[in-house]
Amino acid sequence: MAVASQVAAMLAGGSVIRKLFTEGEEMRKLHGRDRVYDFTLGNPDVEPPPEFAAALHAILEESIPNKHGYMASAGLMETREFVAESVTASRGVPVTPDLVTMTVGAGSALSLAFAVTVNPGDRVIANAPAFVSYANYLSVHRGVLDLVPGREDFSLDLAGIESRLGPDVAAILVNSPNNPSGAIYSAESLQALAAILERASVRTGRRIYLISDEPYREIVYDELGVPSPFSFYDHSILCYSWSKSLSIPGERIGYSAIHPRAEDAGLLARGMTAMTQNMGYTNAPALMQRAVARLGTVSVPVEAYRRRRDLLAAGLRESGYDFILPRGAFYLFPKAPGGDDVAFCTALKDERILAVPGTGFGMPGWFRLSYCVGENSIRDSLPGFSRARARFPADA
Amino acid sequence: MAVASQVAAMLAGGSVIRKLFTEGEEMRKLHGRDRVYDFTLGNPDVEPPPEFAAALHAILEESIPNKHGYMASAGLMETREFVAESVTASRGVPVTPDLVTMTVGAGSALSLAFAVTVNPGDRVIANAPAFVSYANYLSVHRGVLDLVPGREDFSLDLAGIESRLGPDVAAILVNSPNNPSGAIYSAESLQALAAILERASVRTGRRIYLISDEPYREIVYDELGVPSPFSFYDHSILCYSWSKSLSIPGERIGYSAIHPRAEDAGLLARGMTAMTQNMGYTNAPALMQRAVARLGTVSVPVEAYRRRRDLLAAGLRESGYDFILPRGAFYLFPKAPGGDDVAFCTALKDERILAVPGTGFGMPGWFRLSYCVGENSIRDSLPGFSRARARFPADA
Repeated sequence: MAVASQVAAMLAGGSVIRKLFTEGEEMRKLHGRDRVYDFTLGNPDVEPPPEFAAALHAILEESIPNKHGYMASAGLMETREFVAESVTASRGVPVTPDLVTMTVGAGSALSLAFAVTVNPGDRVIANAPAFVSYANYLSVHRGVLDLVPGREDFSLDLAGIESRLGPDVAAILVNSPNNPSGAIYSAESLQALAAILERASVRTGRRIYLISDEPYREIVYDELGVPSPFSFYDHSILCYSWSKSLSIPGERIGYSAIHPRAEDAGLLARGMTAMTQNMGYTNAPALMQRAVARLGTVSVPVEAYRRRRDLLAAGLRESGYDFILPRGAFYLFPKAPGGDDVAFCTALKDERILAVPGTGFGMPGWFRLSYCVGENSIRDSLPGFSRARARFPADA
Repeated sequence: MAVASQVAAMLAGGSVIRKLFTEGEEMRKLHGRDRVYDFTLGNPDVEPPPEFAAALHAILEESIPNKHGYMASAGLMETREFVAESVTASRGVPVTPDLVTMTVGAGSALSLAFAVTVNPGDRVIANAPAFVSYANYLSVHRGVLDLVPGREDFSLDLAGIESRLGPDVAAILVNSPNNPSGAIYSAESLQALAAILERASVRTGRRIYLISDEPYREIVYDELGVPSPFSFYDHSILCYSWSKSLSIPGERIGYSAIHPRAEDAGLLARGMTAMTQNMGYTNAPALMQRAVARLGTVSVPVEAYRRRRDLLAAGLRESGYDFILPRGAFYLFPKAPGGDDVAFCTALKDERILAVPGTGFGMPGWFRLSYCVGENSIRDSLPGFSRARARFPADA
């Protein structure tokens, strides 16, 4: 075979979500689009705020030199200045523009963070459940994702994390609000985590970095603010995307910011810039860089997501599902009745409901429902959820 | 040091172009922006055609479901259909949409092509002079770029290429029109190259792929059409970007297309799609995908580049520089008077002229001038070129 062996192996392995997507397409063809309830994709269905299109129209009308041209790999200075000011204000960390790299969404911000911290064979620790793609991004840099299951309430298992820290650990990845659990980690647990990382770095003689993945920071329901992991530990790299806050995930715009007191902060920033070329990103899309700098703190109203969450939660609770009400993001992560997440997701398919087994997030026995779907679709799906639940009475 | 060792080594090595950029900034501060003649950057200075902004305005106004949302990793079906039709028409190769992946510019298209063909330690052959970043893209996939110098007229050294083909060669990279030489490879030489690749693949028992990098296809001066390397060899991957044809390099929009008769064509396409996730691209920017599909064959007028080329060429010829008139792209690649390209570029700096030594393109003894600069700037720089030339009389 002439195809690169790593890629061939990956394809032979297949992907659960890709398989689900294909099956979903077939089901939609068979039953009609409206009669399939697809809870698999984290694709925001709330429209971008009107200020977004207005900003783009304005930029297109204005006379701006080099409007759509190449720029420094790290991004437009005006946008990096805006990001530095906004991170300084929101996280209480004095970030400067030279520590900011504009990125092709959070995916590329994470990939750059791995590129500058991970040596081949290194581990990166993450709290499970965790986003499916972390291990994929890491594989390009030859690192290994080491998932530490969270506690019953999805909070950080600090003792579990501490026991896994060794000299081959490059970084710990923290995602709050969390995809898929909707958990938000408390200030106390983040403070304790910082102390653990500090102790382990001294013990192993290697600085462990914290990578904070915060694309859901604005999608929260019940609190005034989310404690940012970036604020609690000096040796941190912040990864952000406007995909959720502006409902524009297809446009690929995000950033990374390095904590000014991080060990080798300047070297990390220069490394990220250089790797922006090597990874083939070149720079974050120019028009979107200009737009986000103008939009400031504009964000989608979370009210629509809250209504979806409450509707789905009420229906599932009535049918006897076991879950914790998510405090952020737009996912529900219930226990799989019967205990086998793959078997239960197959049962849901009989009801024309598509869900992702928790196995893909490092948590077998659970499953993920993304509630980026219309309220009517949620309402219509509830009898199916109820019937599927009734087929697994054992742990009722 | 806590930074990944590969990145630390890369930064310690430094980059010639980055150093030049910093020096240029300092010179501009010292002498004023208008009195520094920067010929280093391939950043198109011709405005995008008016149809580009018009298409974006229209898309923003229309009601389109999931306008800025996630999509299949390979890109929007309507855009892939447009690309498939356009490649079929322009290259005479019946490409179908399932063989097309929309990419974050040509840089990511090339990186994906390397990802699916290169095993660690493999070589990729390219004709020198060659674009600086190829080796960087390849390094992420642990391949090595093996440059074969072209002949005196910058045409392909077919015998030289054939002698380098072994079982560790994954692919050959062909860039026509060529950056930095402006050469366009003839149909005859591409036909001969295909026969060589076919023979070598049989001899080594490993299929050698051809990767055709064609971002300058529309920037040609003296011919009706450019023979596409993609049309001559079945086992080819085409990489394209609208950066030059629409003057929008900052927007990062391009594609890759796999030849339908390539060995493992389907596997290559699926591998590219999967690697779009792993590399952190996720998908090509949505708005730009919608725009290029509407713009069809709209392209910048090359007349402005032709005037710049002719102005610069006439001035250099008068001062006694030795070069071949470029037939495409927007670079001039003269011999360095005195033979030492780094020394000569330093001499140019005394005249406030910035140029890139050929060493970075695998061709010491030459240097690159990008003529994406205003005509006034070219005119004002000519006395400096003349004085610098006069300081190296030896090979006059």
